[in-house]
Amino acid sequence: RPFSRVRMKEGEVMIGTQVAKVIQSINPAFPVGCHVVGRCGWRTHTVSDGTGLRCLLSDWPQDVSMSLALGAIGMPGLTALYGLEEVLGLQAGETLLVNAAAGAVGSIVGQIAKIKGCRVVGSTGSNGKVAFLKELGFDEAFNYKTVNSLEEVLKTASPDGYDCFFENVGGLFSSVAIPQMKEFGRIAVCGSISTYNDTNPQTGPYPHLTMIFKQLKMEGFMVGRWEHKNPESLRRLMAWKKEGKLQCREQVTEGFENMPAAFMGMLQGENIGKAIVKV
Amino acid sequence: RPFSRVRMKEGEVMIGTQVAKVIQSINPAFPVGCHVVGRCGWRTHTVSDGTGLRCLLSDWPQDVSMSLALGAIGMPGLTALYGLEEVLGLQAGETLLVNAAAGAVGSIVGQIAKIKGCRVVGSTGSNGKVAFLKELGFDEAFNYKTVNSLEEVLKTASPDGYDCFFENVGGLFSSVAIPQMKEFGRIAVCGSISTYNDTNPQTGPYPHLTMIFKQLKMEGFMVGRWEHKNPESLRRLMAWKKEGKLQCREQVTEGFENMPAAFMGMLQGENIGKAIVKV
Repeated sequence: RPFSRVRMKEGEVMIGTQVAKVIQSINPAFPVGCHVVGRCGWRTHTVSDGTGLRCLLSDWPQDVSMSLALGAIGMPGLTALYGLEEVLGLQAGETLLVNAAAGAVGSIVGQIAKIKGCRVVGSTGSNGKVAFLKELGFDEAFNYKTVNSLEEVLKTASPDGYDCFFENVGGLFSSVAIPQMKEFGRIAVCGSISTYNDTNPQTGPYPHLTMIFKQLKMEGFMVGRWEHKNPESLRRLMAWKKEGKLQCREQVTEGFENMPAAFMGMLQGENIGKAIVKV
Repeated sequence: RPFSRVRMKEGEVMIGTQVAKVIQSINPAFPVGCHVVGRCGWRTHTVSDGTGLRCLLSDWPQDVSMSLALGAIGMPGLTALYGLEEVLGLQAGETLLVNAAAGAVGSIVGQIAKIKGCRVVGSTGSNGKVAFLKELGFDEAFNYKTVNSLEEVLKTASPDGYDCFFENVGGLFSSVAIPQMKEFGRIAVCGSISTYNDTNPQTGPYPHLTMIFKQLKMEGFMVGRWEHKNPESLRRLMAWKKEGKLQCREQVTEGFENMPAAFMGMLQGENIGKAIVKV
């Protein structure tokens, strides 16, 4: 029951990850003054025994915002990297499709794929986001909300089809995109944002025949699977950032009291890049 | 458009593979008297330039029916073998689910999985077939047409879930089976018989969330992908047959004129094992 695994109960602390400063400590691993990343939920102050906390990279540069540890140089960046390298095995010269492409994960997916010498097509939900994707170096970008036919725009953007598809949206988008894959195409299923709020699960045509005839591979994944690689991977992401190869856009909301609005706005696609709340 | 790839036009020779004896030849690769396997379609006699024909294994034993070159020691046997070894990477001790389990492919899938030291659960469509699966050594077998709840029977047959799923049926069965997979479960999509005759594609819930939370891998395949391994693989299948580890059941219909009835019966699940027409 995947739904019940993500559904929360009323009264629970809302889940969320934060960068926090240690202000009191009897744990030598986390001395006063150091910054940690932790899944503390929506709290201004947290008492922790250290479980699930990690220190920021020890050599985090002074001119890089620590909030990137929640985005491009944190879980979303790692998700993009592992999806491309571990799940898709993306190779130079291949064509990649990514949806929710202006989001925290999607925007990093597209940029890493460009670093790797790929052709990148991005789907997103506003004209402003399309312009942002073009700035990031996406080869093709479109606003799925205003196209006449998603099928046609996918065909036009890559008439030979797609080698890889980084899937963040699910639902109807997937039904249209899967038949546009090339033979032996690979699909990394990272998210399914179009179905998260379903009370009754959406339905669509079964992909089996397409998967057979095109010999497609589709794999779901979660970032924690490659946790042992995180330190090295975060350094790689930081290096790309410092070399100017990774633009790390954030949508910053100020004030703890504005978190619910920021969160709901994120689910409705109002953010460009990682949605951050500054407290 | 996978559908149009399998749809035939009226007046075309119906597709089909046969074991045939060469009765005239000017091609030294196929001398008179030898037996060949070829996709000649539904014909009693075929003129061929040799394209797409292959000779039977040169050391085919006299006491093994040559018709097995159409079944367990032919394409369906190879499909079972490659699906298990190349796609699923099935390991000893794992639990495998296979549907259409009494069919030409499914019955070999289950037996090879038993040879490999796995626990095998098979779904099939009649009580006679359930008895057949038990004879073959399946650990659990059930008639999906008479169970109260497919979900419950799958849970009962393997309370810890399934490591691997050899999918021949698609449609509703897949929607119920996918949530029964273990974490990191693998699904080989070989067939989708419940949807072949759809005029309007059937729909079902999107599997994305389950695939993400359980980190499932699902891959479509066709047997031709490993053609370079066929000679060795056919020898392995023949060896298992000779050692008595592979029962090769056939449903034999006599007479060319009975082919349409045999074919339609096969799609409706009337056969146990490989459906063969003897001319």
